[in-house]
Amino acid sequence: MRLDVVTIFPEYLEPLHVSLVGKARASGLLSVGVHDLRRWAYDRHNTVDDTPYGGGPGMVMKTGPWGEALDDVLARGYEEGAHDPVLVVPTPSGRPFTQELAVELSERRWLIFTPARYEGIDGRVAAEYATRMPVHEVSIGDYVLAGGEAAVLVITEAVARLLPGVLGNAQSHRDDSFAPGAMADLLEGPVFTKPPEWRGRGVPDVLLSGHHGKVSRWRRDEALHRTARNRPDLIERCDATAFDKKDRETLSILGWAPEPGGRFWRRPPAVEQ
Amino acid sequence: MRLDVVTIFPEYLEPLHVSLVGKARASGLLSVGVHDLRRWAYDRHNTVDDTPYGGGPGMVMKTGPWGEALDDVLARGYEEGAHDPVLVVPTPSGRPFTQELAVELSERRWLIFTPARYEGIDGRVAAEYATRMPVHEVSIGDYVLAGGEAAVLVITEAVARLLPGVLGNAQSHRDDSFAPGAMADLLEGPVFTKPPEWRGRGVPDVLLSGHHGKVSRWRRDEALHRTARNRPDLIERCDATAFDKKDRETLSILGWAPEPGGRFWRRPPAVEQ
Repeated sequence: MRLDVVTIFPEYLEPLHVSLVGKARASGLLSVGVHDLRRWAYDRHNTVDDTPYGGGPGMVMKTGPWGEALDDVLARGYEEGAHDPVLVVPTPSGRPFTQELAVELSERRWLIFTPARYEGIDGRVAAEYATRMPVHEVSIGDYVLAGGEAAVLVITEAVARLLPGVLGNAQSHRDDSFAPGAMADLLEGPVFTKPPEWRGRGVPDVLLSGHHGKVSRWRRDEALHRTARNRPDLIERCDATAFDKKDRETLSILGWAPEPGGRFWRRPPAVEQ
Repeated sequence: MRLDVVTIFPEYLEPLHVSLVGKARASGLLSVGVHDLRRWAYDRHNTVDDTPYGGGPGMVMKTGPWGEALDDVLARGYEEGAHDPVLVVPTPSGRPFTQELAVELSERRWLIFTPARYEGIDGRVAAEYATRMPVHEVSIGDYVLAGGEAAVLVITEAVARLLPGVLGNAQSHRDDSFAPGAMADLLEGPVFTKPPEWRGRGVPDVLLSGHHGKVSRWRRDEALHRTARNRPDLIERCDATAFDKKDRETLSILGWAPEPGGRFWRRPPAVEQ
């Protein structure tokens, strides 16, 4: 996979040299080009922004440098044999970036990222390149960053770990929160390792029992507990047929009940007499 | 504000030296300590992980190094006059990190981050420190990363930009997507700057009109359009009283209708005759 990132803060992308993405680059599974947008700003001050049309606070990134930068990055990629580029534009106004989109992007061969600063990039840039390639305007969550660079690190890491050969143990995907499988749509519960006692705290007996069925049931119940507490929206989204008899008991104890439509809803707490 | 980060990939946190967080450090608004967890792993291989109790794939980070590291980081912080620490644990199993939590954390004086790798940290570590300080287990979104370091960059950036004196123009917060104000709960629409024509593409006439009321209406309609397309969940969450007469017309054209309960729902598309 080829990744190109155009940014005014190339040094922010240093983490692409370390850890999982760094290893994927070293082993040739990934090639990464980080390009300084200001190389394509030709005035004396290398200006990349200007005031917004219509007034208001903040600055808008100009069409000119982005257009020239993307044209050059595209031309060079094609020359080097890359094809079928996808443009990924991190913006708080985008569609949510999800594990599903991470999987979709991990199946592409060439991703180009345009992390913006200030109030964002002039709207004509995305419109222009959308005539030539798929453009994903994506948001990594409901919070505001100073720029898109941190989002690029998040997206590249989520994508890179899905590339064949990057994670040592293929099994490791299986039980990920948000991954398909037994834990589909449930958060993982707590994990424990040696020693059996630490600062007076033990580990749940069942994990030392060697009884696979019971361990697996305990993990499922812990996942239900944690999901109900931290992400009730995920329980509400589940098709009730995904829950077995034991799941239903656990959910019932936690105050959830099935509705006729086939989903679970949290019962309002009982009124004290 | 004081930030401490304990990690096995200290070099991943290099971006904390650049851009907005870097500037906040340089101007003394923020002090950041990045600590290598392996300093507190005393065996020959500086082991920080072991196999999970109960079996299964992946490795779990051990209590010992984390406990020693956090005790030392806490002791040193207190010695240097810091107080009221908050522990922030990035994990896909946590509560969603939101702009609201960013605001809450920006009002604290000391944040300690414990980004994990592998299958996460032994559950006893969060339980132990929760007896001493608030612990936030947070997830930055519904996707899986290789570790918590990218999440730390995201959270610190979202928090740091809210610190008084960090953003040049206080006004810049006002119209942020997800910020309180006129655009509450709506995504921002497209922005434009000079030149008025680029590669045959103009800018919307209204933005050149100098008519503030019309500009503001156009922006509101674009925000409604984009939100309806990219984040219908945000429209569904809005109290209908937040929408004025013009908003309702725009939403109606986009296929949304108010229900008696006071919220807007997307009408099913009309069946063709």
